[in-house]
Amino acid sequence: MRKKYLMTPGPTPIPPEVLLEMAKPILHHRTPQYQAIFKEVNEGLKYVFQTSNDIVTLASSGTGAMEASIVNLLSKGDKAIVIRGGKFGERFAEICSAYGVEVIPIDIPEGNAPQAPIVRDTLAKNPKAKALYVNLCETSSGSVYDIKSIAEITKKTSTVLVVDAISGLGADDIQTDNWGVDIVVSGSQKGLMMPPGLAFLAISQKAWKAMESSTLPKYYFDLKKAKKALDKTDTPFTPAVSLVIGLREALRMIKEETAEKMFARHKKLADATRESVKALGLELFSKSPSNAVTAVKVPAGIDGEKLVKNLRDVHGVTIAGGQDELKGKIFRVAHLGFMEKFDVITAISAIEIGLKELGYKFELGSGVKVAEKMLAEG
Amino acid sequence: MRKKYLMTPGPTPIPPEVLLEMAKPILHHRTPQYQAIFKEVNEGLKYVFQTSNDIVTLASSGTGAMEASIVNLLSKGDKAIVIRGGKFGERFAEICSAYGVEVIPIDIPEGNAPQAPIVRDTLAKNPKAKALYVNLCETSSGSVYDIKSIAEITKKTSTVLVVDAISGLGADDIQTDNWGVDIVVSGSQKGLMMPPGLAFLAISQKAWKAMESSTLPKYYFDLKKAKKALDKTDTPFTPAVSLVIGLREALRMIKEETAEKMFARHKKLADATRESVKALGLELFSKSPSNAVTAVKVPAGIDGEKLVKNLRDVHGVTIAGGQDELKGKIFRVAHLGFMEKFDVITAISAIEIGLKELGYKFELGSGVKVAEKMLAEG
Repeated sequence: MRKKYLMTPGPTPIPPEVLLEMAKPILHHRTPQYQAIFKEVNEGLKYVFQTSNDIVTLASSGTGAMEASIVNLLSKGDKAIVIRGGKFGERFAEICSAYGVEVIPIDIPEGNAPQAPIVRDTLAKNPKAKALYVNLCETSSGSVYDIKSIAEITKKTSTVLVVDAISGLGADDIQTDNWGVDIVVSGSQKGLMMPPGLAFLAISQKAWKAMESSTLPKYYFDLKKAKKALDKTDTPFTPAVSLVIGLREALRMIKEETAEKMFARHKKLADATRESVKALGLELFSKSPSNAVTAVKVPAGIDGEKLVKNLRDVHGVTIAGGQDELKGKIFRVAHLGFMEKFDVITAISAIEIGLKELGYKFELGSGVKVAEKMLAEG
Repeated sequence: MRKKYLMTPGPTPIPPEVLLEMAKPILHHRTPQYQAIFKEVNEGLKYVFQTSNDIVTLASSGTGAMEASIVNLLSKGDKAIVIRGGKFGERFAEICSAYGVEVIPIDIPEGNAPQAPIVRDTLAKNPKAKALYVNLCETSSGSVYDIKSIAEITKKTSTVLVVDAISGLGADDIQTDNWGVDIVVSGSQKGLMMPPGLAFLAISQKAWKAMESSTLPKYYFDLKKAKKALDKTDTPFTPAVSLVIGLREALRMIKEETAEKMFARHKKLADATRESVKALGLELFSKSPSNAVTAVKVPAGIDGEKLVKNLRDVHGVTIAGGQDELKGKIFRVAHLGFMEKFDVITAISAIEIGLKELGYKFELGSGVKVAEKMLAEG
């Protein structure tokens, strides 16, 4: 008997309604019954992505959609600007390099957000850069980037703006059409409250046009083929049927809440998390904290890896540690997807209990007190 | 109120035990809890694939694993022999072409199986062909190929034998290690009784060695990266967690039945299906019928597409029609995965009812009678 609490930036908890929907007998995908579901999913995704653009759904992790955004836009030897502020900015650069695309990096220290001037300068110096790759939320440092300002710059150019909103979608606002984002990439296991296994690309007319000249090889991730099938509410290859069925239910829940309230809820949970950890004397890692996940510096003298391990194995609460160079230096607690105030209370309470066990000095309950104050209403 | 019966060669019906396993709260994938599940899944897959080789699990459709078997083995300009006897042999050729690999086709009429002499001759004429691509079961025509004989030929050469066992695995025997098959590709939604969304590659030492010189670009489907992670019971990218958890349960069920009995069951169901449709005066499409799916010629004067549609929309029984040029000319009924004798009885009964409605002349019950005779024992 041990209740489990999942507080990681993906996978995130799945609503029981969604789990039960996926537990129904499976359908064949080339039937009117499935087509009707897929059609509703496509409409629901447009609502969440805030776009009227086509949205392609792939059976893959988010990384597959990141790769699709590169192999369909670019050709060998092309230049692409990549904003690298952590593991997932770096991933765009790695994929580009794997395909012989020249990366023009904009490197920013982890936990920082890129500023408009450097983006503008880099674009001005590299007018031939076919695309600019950037994250909405750099999950590795819990940082949100100002996509609106970056889109202001790119939309006056021929450069295609590609935003990885895998962990940000639903938590950090991204107004695809209003801001003029050409490709928005996302995945199922974050704000969409689903298991991993689906990835998405919302694709503008400017992006479709740019794809016409791309010569990088592709097959499974060929978006033109996907678009042709999508026009007939179909997919070129067998879709992940049960996940698409679950997604319909998750999207219905989001629509019922409304996108506006979903963003407000995430902001409120994020604000409360930040203020609560600060009340414990801890410091936020990011200077531009995301509403999806809060990264916190491990205080001096405390073993950060042990904190994460104890919370998971002794107390049943799974939060995330730092990755790569940030291992042991930060911990990350998500307030993403199917989350409400008592999830934040649980997370802060768990952090307090875990820190106390490791000898960190503070008054027990002082974080939860702040969270309660901030979350009591609504 | 309408009970639904799924009789297609993928997705196939999912056991309720597996559906309920996937309906449990989700886990994070970088935890000892998930690692233990993934380890058990890897062992279970080796049992079904009849191999001690590494098995890489991808979050994608089967086509993703087909692509992985090409982009990891070959380089631009390489030659590959592809046996084309239908839609899925053709798919290997399409992927090769997309990546600039020269295809040496062995074309066989749909519904036939490739014979050893032509494979031997083609290999002898093309000793530099790096790989030979072939299906175990060509799902589009319901044909099983003699992989054992083909492996006899390839294993004396440096050519790597890649077998697509996506629809065949579990139904048509494939003895990976005994026969010397270098790469076996499969997917989750067929004999493994799972939803679509997972793909697999069982990879021999000969294949790993051949991969060392491959220069085709890849990232998401990079098998060397997957192998490095697999050695630590991990994956390079977020796995399709809920599907892997379901697969553990499905593999446990297979192990409990034993592989031997699973193959015998599929053979018995396939034999009964074939004899029953013949008793209705119908003709099998394939000269080398698979134990996964039976393709049947639509009799003269009967609208094959209408038959499939009526069975699905009026009677709740989903079988598959023909694809591409075979549309309307054949129908295909699967006896694959979570299937036993009364599923075949239901399928034959549905075909009888559907054919009678469309005016086909035969004695009602004459197919089911044969099926009962053949299936009564065991």
